[in-house]
Amino acid sequence: MADEFDIIETYFSGIGSASASTVLGIGDDAAVVEVPSGQQLVLSMDTLIGGRHFTFDTGPADIAYKALAVNLSDLAAMGAVPAWFLLSLSLAENDERWLAQFADGLKQGAEMFGLQLIGGDTCRGPLAITIQIGGLLPQGRYVTRAGAAPGDIVLVSGELGNAALGLASQSGELELPPALGSKCELALKRPRPRLELAAFLRDYASAAIDISDGLFGDLRHVIDASRRGARISRAAIPVDDWIRQNEAFDYALGGGDDYEICCCVAPRYRAEIEAWNRSHAECRLTPIGEITDEGYEMRVGDSLVDLDDYHGFRHFD
Amino acid sequence: MADEFDIIETYFSGIGSASASTVLGIGDDAAVVEVPSGQQLVLSMDTLIGGRHFTFDTGPADIAYKALAVNLSDLAAMGAVPAWFLLSLSLAENDERWLAQFADGLKQGAEMFGLQLIGGDTCRGPLAITIQIGGLLPQGRYVTRAGAAPGDIVLVSGELGNAALGLASQSGELELPPALGSKCELALKRPRPRLELAAFLRDYASAAIDISDGLFGDLRHVIDASRRGARISRAAIPVDDWIRQNEAFDYALGGGDDYEICCCVAPRYRAEIEAWNRSHAECRLTPIGEITDEGYEMRVGDSLVDLDDYHGFRHFD
Repeated sequence: MADEFDIIETYFSGIGSASASTVLGIGDDAAVVEVPSGQQLVLSMDTLIGGRHFTFDTGPADIAYKALAVNLSDLAAMGAVPAWFLLSLSLAENDERWLAQFADGLKQGAEMFGLQLIGGDTCRGPLAITIQIGGLLPQGRYVTRAGAAPGDIVLVSGELGNAALGLASQSGELELPPALGSKCELALKRPRPRLELAAFLRDYASAAIDISDGLFGDLRHVIDASRRGARISRAAIPVDDWIRQNEAFDYALGGGDDYEICCCVAPRYRAEIEAWNRSHAECRLTPIGEITDEGYEMRVGDSLVDLDDYHGFRHFD
Repeated sequence: MADEFDIIETYFSGIGSASASTVLGIGDDAAVVEVPSGQQLVLSMDTLIGGRHFTFDTGPADIAYKALAVNLSDLAAMGAVPAWFLLSLSLAENDERWLAQFADGLKQGAEMFGLQLIGGDTCRGPLAITIQIGGLLPQGRYVTRAGAAPGDIVLVSGELGNAALGLASQSGELELPPALGSKCELALKRPRPRLELAAFLRDYASAAIDISDGLFGDLRHVIDASRRGARISRAAIPVDDWIRQNEAFDYALGGGDDYEICCCVAPRYRAEIEAWNRSHAECRLTPIGEITDEGYEMRVGDSLVDLDDYHGFRHFD
């Protein structure tokens, strides 16, 4: 039976292409990388836990993909380009089929997003995957949650609420038309981290965050960190027609797992937003409101939102 | 009740002092660091799982300390100096006393070893701690497992087997004299990563590894990566007198959790080894044998060791 060292050699060597920044990858006490002169390193780490962040019947390749995607989404929101990652895998038993499928999903993801597995850890325990990703950006060009200024346009990429609809459909909470069902299942299983937005954010965004805990929960972090307010138009939020027709906006406002980007851009860059949208139909930026000079409040139209209703996904409630 | 964001703010802000390499710490989608020109970054990630790597009655401060120490030991073996770390904490419930004690242990460790907590993740799940540490070293000066050459002296730091004795005593497998019991309990709970050796290893070691899975299991990785053999003198292995008197060498050869360093140094540096030992009584390097030109074999005196008996700690047996 394979042990820890065999597992690393058999399944996790050679995942992703070596990049110029990798000096020493898997196989020693630690990995060694370098950061090109004039660049900074952006670091994200997220854990997915079996039975909590995914159901135990989720396909291993989907789990691997998602563990990468959630971290990549954080990197995109900072304006960074991914370079390498470390993996810690805790697994109840040495299930070779599971491992092979998991490694396949990881490999697909690593190739799709251009990053290399350079180290980590495997051990026996309750199913959990921790991924730590490093990305690069030009010195000082990172985008935080803290820079939103009054008058900035609030934008979100793509469409919100589909992953939450997919989860509700999966758990039998609601029934979706088949085409929408497929779209939402894909949004839940294979979220697309918006890496293509990184350069746009670096150039034009005053603040950005990835929407992992629901739009309002995450926007709340932006107005909190920026010490501003926001006024949002519910009708402007980009959602599937089904959500609009069924007035099911809560899936878009409070649902999690979208991995779209919410960013704030000064109105003087309106032309640049429009240029972006002309060439990125798949990753369109939709204006949904603006930053106000009221400290820490959010309005939908003229109604004040109780921000405590949208505190993001609470892991410890 | 505190949620994820409160937990991070309440317990995990301000752990460790900001270093020159930290640009943006806890509180955004990701952390940002820089690597000084002429330096490379060394990355280690290890997970400790409740009930597997520590018993559930282990004190939270001890768990935090150990999660840092096992990673720092990897960094030391590479020749690196620690800079920062990320933490992923999975916890069954929001136990405020546990969290406060855990954060205290982390803070102590971060101060003792000079590194800063810059990001990570908390979530609800089976108790597990993943720490990812970044350290720095001058460009190209990292030490791997692969450079051992015939004639090199094999050295180990400190004393081996005490943590394994401590574990055996804790589980009631054996009874130790009180003074030794305290020493071994400390070795198990509060292993000292040998960071003071990093510069020595960079200057003189042809290969190095930290002893986390037992001397023979780890030395096996060195001779495997270096494509050499080793001849070891059992009598030379630095152990407590109790192990010698009770012929309990297996605790030193196969026991884990020592977090001492095993390194190989060319005989022309004998004077430098002696100079090190004169000024580092606490972290003495003891010669235990030499590297041979036989590929992948280990002898104790003249007897060939069955390396399959010392495959390191197997997580998936």
